[in-house]
Amino acid sequence: MKKPYLLLLALLLPLLAVSQTPAITRLNPTNWWVGMKYANVQLLVYGPQAGTLTYSITYPGVKLTKTNTVENPNYAFLDLSIAPTAKPGIVRLVGKKGTQTVTQNWELKARDNSPKAQGVTQADFIYLAMPDRFANGDPTNDKFADMADPSSDRANPFLRHGGDLQGAAQHIGYLKDLGVTAVWFTPVIENDQSLTDEGGAKRSAYHGYGFTDHYNVDRRLGGNAAYKTYVQQAHAAGLKVVQDAVYNHVGNNHWFIKDLPMKTWLHQWPTYTNTSYRQQPITDPHAAQIDRRVTLDGWFVPFLPDLNQQNPYVANFLIQHALWSVEMFGVDAWRIDTYMYNDQPFMNRCNAALLAEYPRIHIFGESSVSNVVDQAYYVRNKIDFPFKSNQPGGLDFVLENAMLAGLKEVGGTSATGWDNGVQRVYQALAQDAVYQDPGKLVTFIDNHDHNRYLSEVGEDISKYKMGLTWLLTTRGIPSMYYGTEILMKNFKDPSDAEVRRDFPGGWPGDAQNKFTAAGRTAPENDAFSFVRTLATYRRTHPALHSGKLMQYLPQDGLYVYFRYDASGTVMVATNSTDKAAALPTARFSERMSGFSKARNVLSNEALSSLSTIQLPAKTAVVLELQR
Amino acid sequence: MKKPYLLLLALLLPLLAVSQTPAITRLNPTNWWVGMKYANVQLLVYGPQAGTLTYSITYPGVKLTKTNTVENPNYAFLDLSIAPTAKPGIVRLVGKKGTQTVTQNWELKARDNSPKAQGVTQADFIYLAMPDRFANGDPTNDKFADMADPSSDRANPFLRHGGDLQGAAQHIGYLKDLGVTAVWFTPVIENDQSLTDEGGAKRSAYHGYGFTDHYNVDRRLGGNAAYKTYVQQAHAAGLKVVQDAVYNHVGNNHWFIKDLPMKTWLHQWPTYTNTSYRQQPITDPHAAQIDRRVTLDGWFVPFLPDLNQQNPYVANFLIQHALWSVEMFGVDAWRIDTYMYNDQPFMNRCNAALLAEYPRIHIFGESSVSNVVDQAYYVRNKIDFPFKSNQPGGLDFVLENAMLAGLKEVGGTSATGWDNGVQRVYQALAQDAVYQDPGKLVTFIDNHDHNRYLSEVGEDISKYKMGLTWLLTTRGIPSMYYGTEILMKNFKDPSDAEVRRDFPGGWPGDAQNKFTAAGRTAPENDAFSFVRTLATYRRTHPALHSGKLMQYLPQDGLYVYFRYDASGTVMVATNSTDKAAALPTARFSERMSGFSKARNVLSNEALSSLSTIQLPAKTAVVLELQR
Repeated sequence: MKKPYLLLLALLLPLLAVSQTPAITRLNPTNWWVGMKYANVQLLVYGPQAGTLTYSITYPGVKLTKTNTVENPNYAFLDLSIAPTAKPGIVRLVGKKGTQTVTQNWELKARDNSPKAQGVTQADFIYLAMPDRFANGDPTNDKFADMADPSSDRANPFLRHGGDLQGAAQHIGYLKDLGVTAVWFTPVIENDQSLTDEGGAKRSAYHGYGFTDHYNVDRRLGGNAAYKTYVQQAHAAGLKVVQDAVYNHVGNNHWFIKDLPMKTWLHQWPTYTNTSYRQQPITDPHAAQIDRRVTLDGWFVPFLPDLNQQNPYVANFLIQHALWSVEMFGVDAWRIDTYMYNDQPFMNRCNAALLAEYPRIHIFGESSVSNVVDQAYYVRNKIDFPFKSNQPGGLDFVLENAMLAGLKEVGGTSATGWDNGVQRVYQALAQDAVYQDPGKLVTFIDNHDHNRYLSEVGEDISKYKMGLTWLLTTRGIPSMYYGTEILMKNFKDPSDAEVRRDFPGGWPGDAQNKFTAAGRTAPENDAFSFVRTLATYRRTHPALHSGKLMQYLPQDGLYVYFRYDASGTVMVATNSTDKAAALPTARFSERMSGFSKARNVLSNEALSSLSTIQLPAKTAVVLELQR
Repeated sequence: MKKPYLLLLALLLPLLAVSQTPAITRLNPTNWWVGMKYANVQLLVYGPQAGTLTYSITYPGVKLTKTNTVENPNYAFLDLSIAPTAKPGIVRLVGKKGTQTVTQNWELKARDNSPKAQGVTQADFIYLAMPDRFANGDPTNDKFADMADPSSDRANPFLRHGGDLQGAAQHIGYLKDLGVTAVWFTPVIENDQSLTDEGGAKRSAYHGYGFTDHYNVDRRLGGNAAYKTYVQQAHAAGLKVVQDAVYNHVGNNHWFIKDLPMKTWLHQWPTYTNTSYRQQPITDPHAAQIDRRVTLDGWFVPFLPDLNQQNPYVANFLIQHALWSVEMFGVDAWRIDTYMYNDQPFMNRCNAALLAEYPRIHIFGESSVSNVVDQAYYVRNKIDFPFKSNQPGGLDFVLENAMLAGLKEVGGTSATGWDNGVQRVYQALAQDAVYQDPGKLVTFIDNHDHNRYLSEVGEDISKYKMGLTWLLTTRGIPSMYYGTEILMKNFKDPSDAEVRRDFPGGWPGDAQNKFTAAGRTAPENDAFSFVRTLATYRRTHPALHSGKLMQYLPQDGLYVYFRYDASGTVMVATNSTDKAAALPTARFSERMSGFSKARNVLSNEALSSLSTIQLPAKTAVVLELQR
């Protein structure tokens, strides 16, 4: 109940500014901690004429080393140095101007020892959900009349539907049962954005990629408290949490956009300039400067202003927010939106700060590119580019493209084509020499921006299972989009909203509840069980966590690979043709030598001989080899 | 007239062997030179029981450091050390066994100072011709009854047609007129192969890739003398010569195949094993050993035995032959067949030996791969592969694929597709960051193994000109297949022979002579003039030799790039759509600033203003910018 009052206060601020009475209405970060490696914090102070005050701090171990003022007198950026000896407590910030004194409290907290930044590895299986569309645990927070978009309407695919973190928390058990080990939500941070008008339809910012206040989780998702509670409950259940970070842009309703600290806070253009969405100008040694600028500094869409991360104040703001988020909420990994559009030296600084503070955290950005050279550029790689990325992971768009294109050809006349079908998957992985560690890439076959996987594979359950088998057994950290396990389908055409439908059963009174076996149809239970069987197997078998990959050149549409280490060997044999095949195994002796029998992981059948393996049409068989 | 007698002698050798009288019938290399950096020569001595002799040499400055014997007693490998002080002369090799003494002379020549190993660079334009199919200068050498394939029949596309080096020499003026600066012949070395039976048709080895005696140029092309004469005449005319080298395999009729020095001379398999022709097992970090072996050690075709270059005798034999060829004939550059199938450490040794002896020589291998990662592997690159190639250049298959696929879409509905049309060319070049120097790649749009370029582009002259414009103005060393300039066409289907037809006018009595303007049709003259205009311009404009490339992201099917250096700026603007376009140039200010007018290189028109450039449909315009 407090927040609406704060908002009202905020609305009065312009009036106060006119009166030129200095005041401090915001401090970002909203707090810090003692004992952080990152101990030189740049505190953004905002309020009418806040930049005209002379600041002082008297607190043991905290030193105000410099006060920076900028074009807009409503901002001051205070460089604080926090000594290792500083104790938790309330730091009192004093600002003076003539006879006026303004004070504001800023907390230095003690760090808690709850699990945080545990990282995600190949031992994990990530589930990507949109909180607005997954489950509604608190119908009282679906909408707020005082927000820029006061609507919520499940009947309208473009508006908010009321899903929230409390709802997600109610289904932690469902995910555990499915074999999931980590949850990645599309961004939870406040998106107090107005409705946008695209193609004639009013759309809400339910996707979450337009932040309006970095230090608040959206009230409609439950706010900071619900997020913290969610992470605690997830951790208690052994589930990790991935936060979706957005550095490239903010919502045009962000509080600092409405009163910019300085012109160079954003990438500003003489006339509106959209990014080209093109990867090449960044890595092309022959590129023109203007093409680089358009890709990097052009705006993602008109309502998402593009932050200038070469501005040191912006960079500090974003880096501190990243650290603050991990420390505050205890998230385990860090997914970065539109990674390739960010200033890459800034990204390296930001990644380095996170990794220095949290050595186990995993960071994986979204760089939607079409070849491994460009994909390698944004992660730790083995190419001598002029710029060397320090990002540990990245989303593997190249492998997704290969898997989906390959699956479309499975069973058809081109399944055995020279570069088709399973060859696409094989060939994508065969270029892994460009990465320092391809096992740190996050693999996927669908996400909130792509067609639903089931629709991509033509609603062919054989293909569906084949692709999921690859996802859950080949190298990389697998991730899956919510609903894929219950056969949710649709194409992005006519709109993204089609692939972001509500999870049936997530809302009180839903006619169907697909969270339970009883609520699912037989095909849905079959799909769910398929994912669960593989995910559960994966969870307990180290060969799929840290084992090497060995893949064999596909022949006649049959593709065989192994994951192996000292603990075991898993063989995955795919028949991508529409006819059953008998696969002689002599060729695979480098990996099969010493094994005489096997267990079929999916059917639980025992194979007493391995000299020839029977492969049904359009099927990927997973075998645990035994001596 | 001498050679048939030598051959007869060779036919008598098996009888001599039976009698166990030691003899020396071959020494390879057939001679060496004083003053070579490569001064430790391994002399292959062949003859009945040649390996049972005890050898000695008494020649100032030449020392026999070791005699190596192998499984087959008909071979000895003598390690010779040639001191810098050694003088030219006849080295007398003496072999003794009991009371028997065998002697053989081996010449140490003085090096001549004729031009050799001049290299090819971006200043060059290479013309690829098949000597059997280009011009017949000496009808008396078309066939020899004492050769394994005694046939020659122009009416049969699969048999030899009688073209030769003397014929090629008669048309040096034609190539000079066309603007060509270097000639690359498919291999000229003896292919005394029998006819092969493929798909029901008897085929001769006119292509040249099955050597049967490394130290003889095929008699049907004119032999060593004609080759040396050709190079001298070419050099006198300012034309360079590229030799086509084959290390991976030899013809199954090669003299040493018929009496193998040792089992490990070849890659031998329990049953015949063909290469998979797959690039991935070499570079894939996840590859299986067997897949690597099949790619590398499998045979290219059944009649081309695969040499084992890890055998040091084989390696020495091949390296010495490479050096001998350059020194003997004076060739300027070195094209290497089936480069990716060779043992790569061997290739590095071989390249290093050539480059040490001839620092300016250019080496470019054929690695028919489908992505830049694999292409980079075989040249000096910027990827931290476990193996680092030292090859300076390579044939740019990736760019060829991109250009041909892009041209097919020009003018069609997909010309402006996200990744289509000119985007393919742009995107291929945008990955040049993987190479140490992409300008050293040899670019092409056709060759003797691919469909004829004109047919690839659907016999569309607009596309034909567009692709040639790219070839002759973008980065790299352009090469073109014979006949493309006179609109020769055809697909490889039903056979390679279709793309290897005779150059009309190359044979005495040909009904048409396309070597002359009068013999060409109007469209042929238009094509010829087009190539000549561009090639001639290229030859005299350093911006196209050593200028940088800057390319702009294609927009709406319009693709603009520049070649530029201090000497000048050339702008190439391609309209790939089927409608004329007006191109505003403000976006290109990084390169156009300071230029106010231009000359259209192809039409010779003057442009008095550059603010907007008119681009006809399906046209690439080449502009020399002027201040």
